[in-house]
Amino acid sequence: MTQSGLAISDILEAQKRLQGQAIVTPLLPLPLLSEDYAGSFWVKAENLQRTGSFKFRGAYNALKQIADQDQKTPIVAASSGNHAQGIAEAARLLGLKAHIVMPHDAPEVKVNRVRRSGGIVHCYDRHHEDRNSIAQKVKNELEAHYVAPFDDWRVMAGQGTAGLDIVEQLSSIGKKADHVLICCSGGGLSAGMAVALHHHWPNCRLYTVEPEGFDDMARSLKAGKRVRNEKTSGYICDALLIPEPGEKTFPILQKHITAGLTVSDEETRQAMAYAFHECKLVLEPGGAVALAALLQNKLADWFKPGESVVAVLSGGNVAPSVLGEALESYLPLRE
Amino acid sequence: MTQSGLAISDILEAQKRLQGQAIVTPLLPLPLLSEDYAGSFWVKAENLQRTGSFKFRGAYNALKQIADQDQKTPIVAASSGNHAQGIAEAARLLGLKAHIVMPHDAPEVKVNRVRRSGGIVHCYDRHHEDRNSIAQKVKNELEAHYVAPFDDWRVMAGQGTAGLDIVEQLSSIGKKADHVLICCSGGGLSAGMAVALHHHWPNCRLYTVEPEGFDDMARSLKAGKRVRNEKTSGYICDALLIPEPGEKTFPILQKHITAGLTVSDEETRQAMAYAFHECKLVLEPGGAVALAALLQNKLADWFKPGESVVAVLSGGNVAPSVLGEALESYLPLRE
Repeated sequence: MTQSGLAISDILEAQKRLQGQAIVTPLLPLPLLSEDYAGSFWVKAENLQRTGSFKFRGAYNALKQIADQDQKTPIVAASSGNHAQGIAEAARLLGLKAHIVMPHDAPEVKVNRVRRSGGIVHCYDRHHEDRNSIAQKVKNELEAHYVAPFDDWRVMAGQGTAGLDIVEQLSSIGKKADHVLICCSGGGLSAGMAVALHHHWPNCRLYTVEPEGFDDMARSLKAGKRVRNEKTSGYICDALLIPEPGEKTFPILQKHITAGLTVSDEETRQAMAYAFHECKLVLEPGGAVALAALLQNKLADWFKPGESVVAVLSGGNVAPSVLGEALESYLPLRE
Repeated sequence: MTQSGLAISDILEAQKRLQGQAIVTPLLPLPLLSEDYAGSFWVKAENLQRTGSFKFRGAYNALKQIADQDQKTPIVAASSGNHAQGIAEAARLLGLKAHIVMPHDAPEVKVNRVRRSGGIVHCYDRHHEDRNSIAQKVKNELEAHYVAPFDDWRVMAGQGTAGLDIVEQLSSIGKKADHVLICCSGGGLSAGMAVALHHHWPNCRLYTVEPEGFDDMARSLKAGKRVRNEKTSGYICDALLIPEPGEKTFPILQKHITAGLTVSDEETRQAMAYAFHECKLVLEPGGAVALAALLQNKLADWFKPGESVVAVLSGGNVAPSVLGEALESYLPLRE
């Protein structure tokens, strides 16, 4: 609990805690794309994770460590939705009480799931109120444990187990990944996976992928310091609307990430439709950006024929209407 | 090629032929349902199979055997869509020419995929023309090989590999299945899987699941002889509208199936919506009937707490509008 930094041993311990709780999500091949690009292309389907996103991993890893020492103190988390669901469901499974600070415009499907898991929702106005100060207020009032969505070593270690999965899944068929694309908001998933993947495959190139306009990580990596986004809403990727990279995640990502890639909302919609039609998978916008980068050939500067590429699909908690819009604009890559 | 009957050795040979071609689709846990029923519930996600349904397995297994001996003679198949796509894509991969006899009202998404794979589509009127006689006519004109959608030992052996997958996937975590529910039309998938599953787990109970009104298999199993459906269309499960059980599949199923279950169109829609919201999987109506039976507790007469249950999700080739209708009527099992 007094841990500082993120080591492979933390991720291995997280993997033990998650056994039988998190789903070892499938690594699914993309046969047509692999043919078209003469490579070996895969998706890591974290949308099939418990609660519909990778966030359950980090949440359960953090809450299990808390529950082992203290069953009584409530948990407070702040999240636009997926971390909220992960925390609420992990709390339910571990017998803890969870209070979640969510923006007033969080998708209904995500708010409902938090409530279904027994989580107590505290709403705030994303445009006029500061999430962190509200979360702090709730934490102080309840004398609760606060679990940050990404800037928490326990959370990062949990997310890193998705990287261990990929290593085990590809190793079991005699392969390794040359490139891994990771959907990025605050950088918790990217940081955790980077430590796990580079421990086993030091030459694997890693990329964060963000929505255009919310490319704080890409710009921060270029600038060599954390820079902020100008906007706080207005894009379809509700899961990726964080103002700036994490204080703890950023130095890790500076060390591990080859490049920060960005995709447009329209490219994201095309990827959601591709996942629907070609993979039979439901993706939310924020869960589709890494696939979008792959489909739009944004790896062109690095990828060489014969190499292996994994795109992480980070979540599937989408309203039917939002997916429906994406499906309407679909332009198949192959006719 | 002159094989008669279906042995476990045929399915093991099919598994070798399919290696690197078919996807070993994931067996995904259903944590909430497992909690609610105090059992261990899984779905075998064959909607994630190449071409979006299990049919690729049987098609590739049949066509590989043909291609090994004869690269020149074209293939003829008759299908409402999923067998068509499986045959067309397997033919493309093996360098064969495929002609597909499809009903005029087959879903556009399925017809388009057949054409994308290079398949030549021959349309017929489902209400006024006999599919088999048209397929026979095309076969004779082209002097082609005919590959039946289910009454073909090679096809059944290919479909059976989905059963071997389940055995390997559950055995690897020290488990076995007590009940397996299989979406059923002509019975090719059910027959293949039955032989594979009962070879390893002789006490596992197997169930076919069909749409109400197209329950020819359930009524045939009860009657002890093959009986026909009265209607030939009018249900949402376009993939399961076969007039009667197969001549070759039926005796196998008589030996292996505990009961033939049926579900309504509305129950099927609820299962499609459940798969969307809870599993983040895209299912077509015919691919959702086994899950529908599970969700509607149609195993109540047989299931005991602590047992393991697998529902096969057989396909995901659905038009967005059809899935959209299912999502509109969704009544969550948990609020």
